Amino acid sequence: MHSTFSKSALFTDFYELTMAQGYWKQNMNHPVVFDMFFRRQPFNGGFSVFAGIEPLLDSLEDFSFDEDEISYLREQDIFEESFLEYLKGFKFSGDLYSFEEGSVIFPQEPLVRIHANLIEAQIIEGLVLNLCNFQSLIATKTARVWLSSKKGNVMEFGLRRAQGPDGGMSATRASYIGGAAGTSNTLAGKIYGIPVMGTMAHSWVMSFPSELEAFEAYARLYPNKTIFLIDTYDTLKSGIKNAIKAGTKLVEQGYNFGVRLDSGDISYLTAEVRKELDKAGFPQAFICVSNDLTEEIIETLVQQNAPIASWGVGTHMVTGGTESSFTGVYKLAAKKSGNEFIPTMKFSDNPSKNTNPGIKNVFRLYDEKGMARADILALDEETLEAGKEYRYFHPMVDYRQFSFTASQIKPMLKKRLENGKRTESRLSDSEQLKISRRRMMEEIETLDPSFKRILNPHIYKVSMTEKLKDLKLAFIKANIR
Amino acid sequence: MHSTFSKSALFTDFYELTMAQGYWKQNMNHPVVFDMFFRRQPFNGGFSVFAGIEPLLDSLEDFSFDEDEISYLREQDIFEESFLEYLKGFKFSGDLYSFEEGSVIFPQEPLVRIHANLIEAQIIEGLVLNLCNFQSLIATKTARVWLSSKKGNVMEFGLRRAQGPDGGMSATRASYIGGAAGTSNTLAGKIYGIPVMGTMAHSWVMSFPSELEAFEAYARLYPNKTIFLIDTYDTLKSGIKNAIKAGTKLVEQGYNFGVRLDSGDISYLTAEVRKELDKAGFPQAFICVSNDLTEEIIETLVQQNAPIASWGVGTHMVTGGTESSFTGVYKLAAKKSGNEFIPTMKFSDNPSKNTNPGIKNVFRLYDEKGMARADILALDEETLEAGKEYRYFHPMVDYRQFSFTASQIKPMLKKRLENGKRTESRLSDSEQLKISRRRMMEEIETLDPSFKRILNPHIYKVSMTEKLKDLKLAFIKANIR
Repeated sequence: MHSTFSKSALFTDFYELTMAQGYWKQNMNHPVVFDMFFRRQPFNGGFSVFAGIEPLLDSLEDFSFDEDEISYLREQDIFEESFLEYLKGFKFSGDLYSFEEGSVIFPQEPLVRIHANLIEAQIIEGLVLNLCNFQSLIATKTARVWLSSKKGNVMEFGLRRAQGPDGGMSATRASYIGGAAGTSNTLAGKIYGIPVMGTMAHSWVMSFPSELEAFEAYARLYPNKTIFLIDTYDTLKSGIKNAIKAGTKLVEQGYNFGVRLDSGDISYLTAEVRKELDKAGFPQAFICVSNDLTEEIIETLVQQNAPIASWGVGTHMVTGGTESSFTGVYKLAAKKSGNEFIPTMKFSDNPSKNTNPGIKNVFRLYDEKGMARADILALDEETLEAGKEYRYFHPMVDYRQFSFTASQIKPMLKKRLENGKRTESRLSDSEQLKISRRRMMEEIETLDPSFKRILNPHIYKVSMTEKLKDLKLAFIKANIR
Repeated sequence: MHSTFSKSALFTDFYELTMAQGYWKQNMNHPVVFDMFFRRQPFNGGFSVFAGIEPLLDSLEDFSFDEDEISYLREQDIFEESFLEYLKGFKFSGDLYSFEEGSVIFPQEPLVRIHANLIEAQIIEGLVLNLCNFQSLIATKTARVWLSSKKGNVMEFGLRRAQGPDGGMSATRASYIGGAAGTSNTLAGKIYGIPVMGTMAHSWVMSFPSELEAFEAYARLYPNKTIFLIDTYDTLKSGIKNAIKAGTKLVEQGYNFGVRLDSGDISYLTAEVRKELDKAGFPQAFICVSNDLTEEIIETLVQQNAPIASWGVGTHMVTGGTESSFTGVYKLAAKKSGNEFIPTMKFSDNPSKNTNPGIKNVFRLYDEKGMARADILALDEETLEAGKEYRYFHPMVDYRQFSFTASQIKPMLKKRLENGKRTESRLSDSEQLKISRRRMMEEIETLDPSFKRILNPHIYKVSMTEKLKDLKLAFIKANIR
């Protein structure tokens, strides 16, 4: 189940429709190939995590205009009746290749490659970008948070600060792929099979005559899942003391307990709270923290060995915080003329914004230890073999090149839609999500730690085959005026 | 029509449900009053614009658990059957007071005031915050963009970078309230009755053998709405020259035309393009710009008198850019004990995070010129009269006070739900949105320009009546240990 909005083919920028009518009237609806790719890692990071493709496949299988929507377009007084007839039968009937969800991704790589006629390819542009951009942003942010916690226990608590209801739902989905262990969002728990978590709020504590009574009541109700929120009044003067009193009874009954801090100096307070718990004879009692956490704050706390068992992360993780969008774009790579596809290339005053021409594939090269060493953009007709040495080229600076013999080579793009239909049967949301999450965790393991640094990471190589480099250079030479 | 997700009462943080079971089992489901308010203006601004309340009313009227959702909760193995029975009949049956959509708002003011039993008030918390936080963020951001353009022609172009499908839809809705003249999001155009806009993309230009042919084809198709995108190849060397060639024919046929720039140095290029258009004898041809615009960039261009007729703004406007969440919170203000409501107050180590106790109203004071001079928090039983002098107190620093005789006093909270149902019949989405947008424009006019500065604005006064100040101080004294 995904947002109903994304089933409507009106979920598109208006100019796609005015252009579509133009292509249709001029008989220009030839087959094309579009690439979705991104230009720059968010958060000054060294990698991103691809997400959103599975909801995109769902939407594309149903993407169409209903009668009402056709009437709405008619009212705009710009579309001809015969074109509206065409739109009535519109569906996405092309092929789609993509990276798999949860894969680690790098700039310049075609993450989604669309083979369709020009009108279909254009009308779906907004949908492709909307779904993949946002979910990749959040999966990436969460993976950073999760790594900063040393792959710890990260809980997504962002529903109230997410960007709208579906912002909350798809952020929860993407953050699970990125390594969150669970969510507070109960509906997402149901729909996506993500573990739901959460204990008490300050309002619980304030609803009782005293903090101790609030704690004792909770412990009676949920003896095997009690986490006392200890900062409602004063963490050290009252919260931890009452938690220990109420917790003592739980331990006597054979249970354990935890405490949560949601404000104040986390570094200082968790150290003091740990001492109190240990002094009271509860080394097994655990500490959770929340309160505007970011990967940078978590990394600092972990480096200080702050005694923290789990992390509740909200706002920054579900919105991206100071970086609230992913830079994915969607560009023409080739168009059919006669019987063959002609590569196309877009130029820009800024060479880093030139596109890479032609129908492309991506290969990931692994060394003998199974570590990913580089991703290679190649023309689709090329194959690369493990055990053979090839020379690879920097995508913009062609004198930067290297030779490498990979022990293993993995093609990253997989055909997911053929003639608009899935090539494999759809898994349940919950099964799919577990697979996407596991893939993220496995692929992250194949990256050298230097690429995973939160601050100032090493840049992973994305290079081109000689053939693709020659094609690109030929375009550049032809474009010099 | 709004996101289907927000009709499910599972769209709540899990701890609301575990706490609810606790309240229910202990017979603590007494009437309470909760306030939604925010603590700090986003974007370092001087005002915010309230939005999201109308979709919230829709959701609250339907908010319930279906059979499937009850089964899901049963599987969590934490809820008793009799509590699940209670949830089956759950609906929001309380009263809701709020600011009207499009109103200008300030920190500390109760924007939404909920009167309900404790369980209902808690289960809706996430929904209230999710909808009002996000839409207020975007309405505020857009109002800043619109003001920076001197109330110019701002088009929302953010669908592809918005946070998910509904993030796109509700952002479009909120940005219209905030002053956008239209959107590229066709579905939002249909659902909300917002004008849809947009012309051609780079891919149109690249789909033709030459830029001139692309322009001429478009001009033939849409002679009365042609805006040439002139930066696909080279704005000054080719784009503007071809636009003038194709535009000449349009003008000969009695039409006008525009050009759009989507890259490069906007300040320099628009000046050059303007010169070319004037030299060719087309002073009426207009210039639109897009490309990662923010209110700061627009303000600079406007101050330089850049010859720009309209602004296409995407990413920053629909996500908030570097500030991606609104700081709204939801706190207990009073609870019923016996026959009366007892004010409550939450304390924090940070005094600015102490809440204001009791059931409160907000009055806006106007001077004789109709300008808003201060907003006053008062206890609900208080009335303030125009033409009478009162003394008002700073909400945190009680030696800061002032006396004022208002020419006009407006109570800002209006009852919108009674026993869970609207007090007035629902308008269509499109009618409502026009009203909300007009309200924003009218209220903005009552603010002195110093509060509307993009950078370093003057701080608008939000003060308290003496009675509320005394109540708050009594709480503070009682809390000193």
